[in-house]
Amino acid sequence: MIDLRSDTVTVPTDGMRKAMARAEVGDDVYGEDPTVNRLQDMAAALLGKRFALFVPSGTMANQLAIRCQTQPGQEVIVESTAHIVRYEQGAAGALAGVQLHWVPGERGVMTAEQVEAAIRPKDPYSIPTALICLENTHNSGGGTIYPLSTIEKIRAVAVKHGIPMHLDGARLLNAVAATTLPAASYAQHFETVSLCLSKGLGAPVGSLLISSEQGLIERARRYRRMYGGAMRQAGILAAAGIYALEHHVARLKEDHDHAKKLARLLQQIPAVRISPQHVETNIVIFDVEDQRRTPAEIVAALRGQGVLINAIGGRRYRAVTHLNISAKQIDEAGAVFARVLAP
Amino acid sequence: MIDLRSDTVTVPTDGMRKAMARAEVGDDVYGEDPTVNRLQDMAAALLGKRFALFVPSGTMANQLAIRCQTQPGQEVIVESTAHIVRYEQGAAGALAGVQLHWVPGERGVMTAEQVEAAIRPKDPYSIPTALICLENTHNSGGGTIYPLSTIEKIRAVAVKHGIPMHLDGARLLNAVAATTLPAASYAQHFETVSLCLSKGLGAPVGSLLISSEQGLIERARRYRRMYGGAMRQAGILAAAGIYALEHHVARLKEDHDHAKKLARLLQQIPAVRISPQHVETNIVIFDVEDQRRTPAEIVAALRGQGVLINAIGGRRYRAVTHLNISAKQIDEAGAVFARVLAP
Amino acid sequence: MIDLRSDTVTVPTDGMRKAMARAEVGDDVYGEDPTVNRLQDMAAALLGKRFALFVPSGTMANQLAIRCQTQPGQEVIVESTAHIVRYEQGAAGALAGVQLHWVPGERGVMTAEQVEAAIRPKDPYSIPTALICLENTHNSGGGTIYPLSTIEKIRAVAVKHGIPMHLDGARLLNAVAATTLPAASYAQHFETVSLCLSKGLGAPVGSLLISSEQGLIERARRYRRMYGGAMRQAGILAAAGIYALEHHVARLKEDHDHAKKLARLLQQIPAVRISPQHVETNIVIFDVEDQRRTPAEIVAALRGQGVLINAIGGRRYRAVTHLNISAKQIDEAGAVFARVLAP
Amino acid sequence: MIDLRSDTVTVPTDGMRKAMARAEVGDDVYGEDPTVNRLQDMAAALLGKRFALFVPSGTMANQLAIRCQTQPGQEVIVESTAHIVRYEQGAAGALAGVQLHWVPGERGVMTAEQVEAAIRPKDPYSIPTALICLENTHNSGGGTIYPLSTIEKIRAVAVKHGIPMHLDGARLLNAVAATTLPAASYAQHFETVSLCLSKGLGAPVGSLLISSEQGLIERARRYRRMYGGAMRQAGILAAAGIYALEHHVARLKEDHDHAKKLARLLQQIPAVRISPQHVETNIVIFDVEDQRRTPAEIVAALRGQGVLINAIGGRRYRAVTHLNISAKQIDEAGAVFARVLAP
Repeated sequence: MIDLRSDTVTVPTDGMRKAMARAEVGDDVYGEDPTVNRLQDMAAALLGKRFALFVPSGTMANQLAIRCQTQPGQEVIVESTAHIVRYEQGAAGALAGVQLHWVPGERGVMTAEQVEAAIRPKDPYSIPTALICLENTHNSGGGTIYPLSTIEKIRAVAVKHGIPMHLDGARLLNAVAATTLPAASYAQHFETVSLCLSKGLGAPVGSLLISSEQGLIERARRYRRMYGGAMRQAGILAAAGIYALEHHVARLKEDHDHAKKLARLLQQIPAVRISPQHVETNIVIFDVEDQRRTPAEIVAALRGQGVLINAIGGRRYRAVTHLNISAKQIDEAGAVFARVLAP
Repeated sequence: MIDLRSDTVTVPTDGMRKAMARAEVGDDVYGEDPTVNRLQDMAAALLGKRFALFVPSGTMANQLAIRCQTQPGQEVIVESTAHIVRYEQGAAGALAGVQLHWVPGERGVMTAEQVEAAIRPKDPYSIPTALICLENTHNSGGGTIYPLSTIEKIRAVAVKHGIPMHLDGARLLNAVAATTLPAASYAQHFETVSLCLSKGLGAPVGSLLISSEQGLIERARRYRRMYGGAMRQAGILAAAGIYALEHHVARLKEDHDHAKKLARLLQQIPAVRISPQHVETNIVIFDVEDQRRTPAEIVAALRGQGVLINAIGGRRYRAVTHLNISAKQIDEAGAVFARVLAP
Repeated sequence: MIDLRSDTVTVPTDGMRKAMARAEVGDDVYGEDPTVNRLQDMAAALLGKRFALFVPSGTMANQLAIRCQTQPGQEVIVESTAHIVRYEQGAAGALAGVQLHWVPGERGVMTAEQVEAAIRPKDPYSIPTALICLENTHNSGGGTIYPLSTIEKIRAVAVKHGIPMHLDGARLLNAVAATTLPAASYAQHFETVSLCLSKGLGAPVGSLLISSEQGLIERARRYRRMYGGAMRQAGILAAAGIYALEHHVARLKEDHDHAKKLARLLQQIPAVRISPQHVETNIVIFDVEDQRRTPAEIVAALRGQGVLINAIGGRRYRAVTHLNISAKQIDEAGAVFARVLAP
Repeated sequence: MIDLRSDTVTVPTDGMRKAMARAEVGDDVYGEDPTVNRLQDMAAALLGKRFALFVPSGTMANQLAIRCQTQPGQEVIVESTAHIVRYEQGAAGALAGVQLHWVPGERGVMTAEQVEAAIRPKDPYSIPTALICLENTHNSGGGTIYPLSTIEKIRAVAVKHGIPMHLDGARLLNAVAATTLPAASYAQHFETVSLCLSKGLGAPVGSLLISSEQGLIERARRYRRMYGGAMRQAGILAAAGIYALEHHVARLKEDHDHAKKLARLLQQIPAVRISPQHVETNIVIFDVEDQRRTPAEIVAALRGQGVLINAIGGRRYRAVTHLNISAKQIDEAGAVFARVLAP
């Protein structure tokens, strides 16, 4: 099977398994797991921040960021198709009690003007705007890289209004790999950043919440316990994360090349509508014109030929490249697409 | 002062005060206030429903409707500028734990196509869509009347997907007055309707949550207590509501005439941008082109001349007619606008 | 009917109705209702505080106090049978997200030692203790007056640990009437106090949240809107509150005399177990030994003879005196009790 | 170091590490991790139930059980010193919005009479009782085993009132090891059971929520995602859990013998107050009379001699035996206690 559903489906490599097998561990609830501590330090340093907290998922990292920087009844500005809006089961409302303020972006990217227009006036009748969330790269936008200049302009707006910013950086290192900008050049504009180890980086489990504010990370640690994310000998998982940061960052470029290649192959198929120039990282989004079959049928037909992808609404599909996908498999997948999507 | 800030600023008439002064009362927490019970029966009958619950505010009526028809973590479809989104302090998230799904409407009105596109697929990953909320007339849209045919189409979508509907009918009787359609012809398409007595109807305090589902109203009664809205001898207030339903419904047409008149007067002022055909009920929304003054300064200048209105963002202003505004005052206000907004 | 179910069942007197009928009103959401403002000032002054906020119910006053002084996940120390525990529909958890820490008191009164033992250690594993709530007089305790010396000792503990205190003073003026201590002598020990106008004071609707902290009252005002408690021309109700504070405070002593009288009458009935010395204010709690009838049957039998009381669990009953109960009715009620509870 | 602070501090054995290193994995968010699925099936079968869900912590398992069986504003009956009360950061209120109804037990064990007295009447004024939670063995009670006959009586009360039951079975297998009763003989009385793999069983991370109700487990899966507990290739952790269930259950008896031995050694120390007959499983709770030193100082003095324990309030201390503690270490610890606690 060529599994292009998500970069979350990767299985640990042998090297990573060895790292897990020999990981030194302790009780992380007591803060005594040396491998977790080491991973947290590494991740903070990578982003030019002071502290990090290891958590079971990207959703928890994002939700701790929201919870620690808002009060129930406040508003959080976020792009309408963000992971926080679509794929976290309404946690922002259910757990933090906040209201998301939806801003429609261009392939996931909001402008500074849009963000400023979304900030509520400071009066007793309006809902206080408490936080601005960006997602980079933007999953539903198609792996879009947030231009650093756009982030800088949004940051200026945020600073002007005294509003903190959170970066859903689940795939931040894809942006780093694509632009060759340092991770910290992005992270510097945010009070909090989440970073996921189990997407393109290929670790089995885990994300990090990263910040330079000690009090915030201490509060996040308390909420992590409340949300059920305090794990004991989590060093087993952290070891995989360290291995991923040491071995799987540079190779993300390869996934991007594969995605671009796949986009070009898809473009040659008459039924496919795709803009290869919009494939900036490892996510390929495309439409299929097919009057005969439903999306579920198309997905099943591809699966029957050994290629897995996700239908994501309407006539739209998503394919994601990752470390378990080789250049050869991209060619094979391209052939399968051509065959299955032929008129 | 000619107070056009809102139709909430009305003060009780002499007749209404007399009705309050002689109201028969009991303890409504025990369900024993005869005047409250009578008001609830009247309101339910007016909308062709079986039950109603008296509450202190329109916000509470809306929030009880949401709380009783959703679970934390579910999604509620609502137009982006609805009262529920803008003016309820984020209660949908903070109290009910739900996520609002913002749909941008045309002057507050969503299409059935938009609503259907906003319904999430029924799978374990997507957020369950639990409720669709409409607002009629639509405050921020400019007192817009929801076309009954649009409501019928949205209802068909809701029924197809098995999703209940709530009507924020704070100003439903304005739509009724303008269209001469019976209130029940609107209400029949909704599981729950809120109705406000203290806007155009001129009662000092109070709203109703109305439904034909007994269990829902019983749950709402319990949540009313939790939210702090259970009042004791509320018959004092209910008497004003009964008076309003008996004496102030027919006259809403007058407010609409005043609003249309005001719109025409405003249209003659060069600095004003207004579409009089969009003034459908008692709310007048217009833009002012003025390079010299901020909105706060313009509002202050008008106040200095005896006219109160609200700035509502950007260069936009809102004026609302109501039972304390006479035809003569509309003329006076028009003159003040012309004077103050002259170049 | 002699209605001894609660002091909430009182209906407004003629004088109070006149005050309501001629009340000057404005839109309190804009802070422009002069009568509401006057009531708030009066209540704050009465308690020696600076600010007050008028709300629809005692539950809302208590819940705003909790919401404004806690964070979700924190703990609030409260006596196990307090109104906040029993009669607010779990609002502390559902709206504020806090955990109540139950301390079993003696007729509703906790000791300073108990309170101190309930304060959690300040470490990352324990739940932060955020607030201590007392209720004076204590409803379920039997109208118990919190001894000022006990309050002072609890205050010392609170100060030592840096924890604010809230007083559920729904019936604080009963304690004041009984002890002749100034209300402020109690209130001084609390950051926030709630005061109810619709219990012994006889107003139809309304409570106040009182505090000297301006920021807290501003936050409470915002949450009042969120909870649906922002009312428009609430001056109608506030006028009744002002009338109550001016005319019904001194007479609370009368209710206490009636309650003591009733207790003595009940004591003479063989089936009744009562400690008259525990009847400190206007609440009379007693047990009935009766093998033949259920509590519901006993309540119904009394009702059949024109006396209403509440069964409150097990063999326990509660009778409450108030301004609609005369000395003569106490004698009549005593005779009914003797007749109905005779073996 | 002889670490007796908790049975959570165990580090994986070589066999367990090998099992993790070679675990077959998939994406558990898609339900495709074969090792997670196998663990879930094993755990469900062990308890005589049909379904199980793997989660990162015992707190999450308990909180999912509460969330799935309650509504915000309802009440959950629980012993006053339960893990749910003390060590879950107030999650029951903050996440599920419920109120805990504290019942003081005898070493953590409630009687059926207490539970029945805590059930609220079914009327519109009382808070609905939604769930009864038991903890077996009871951590803060001192590793107390809930007598099966007591559970049966509580179950009869629950059935009579139509209230579901949850078992916090973090250490259920300790009760099983001590009594030799089958796990299912306990579990049969509960709609939901949580089971922890990272306490006495020695796995690094993970708990299970177990139930026979498919819909409940599906809802729990959705809330697991909301709470941030959905992990990707969690089979790495599940492999350790399978290993623990296969190799570490029978040996729990050993921990109990060690705890009893330690209790006898402590009993011989004059400053120690302990009831060895109350040491039923692997938890040893005792008091130390020491006028000279604070608990923190005593803990530090023991640490200085190589023994780690926790002070748990007042003069009370807790020592816990587990798979990394040998019989020899118990003797050594006994000697350290004797030395450090000597007058």
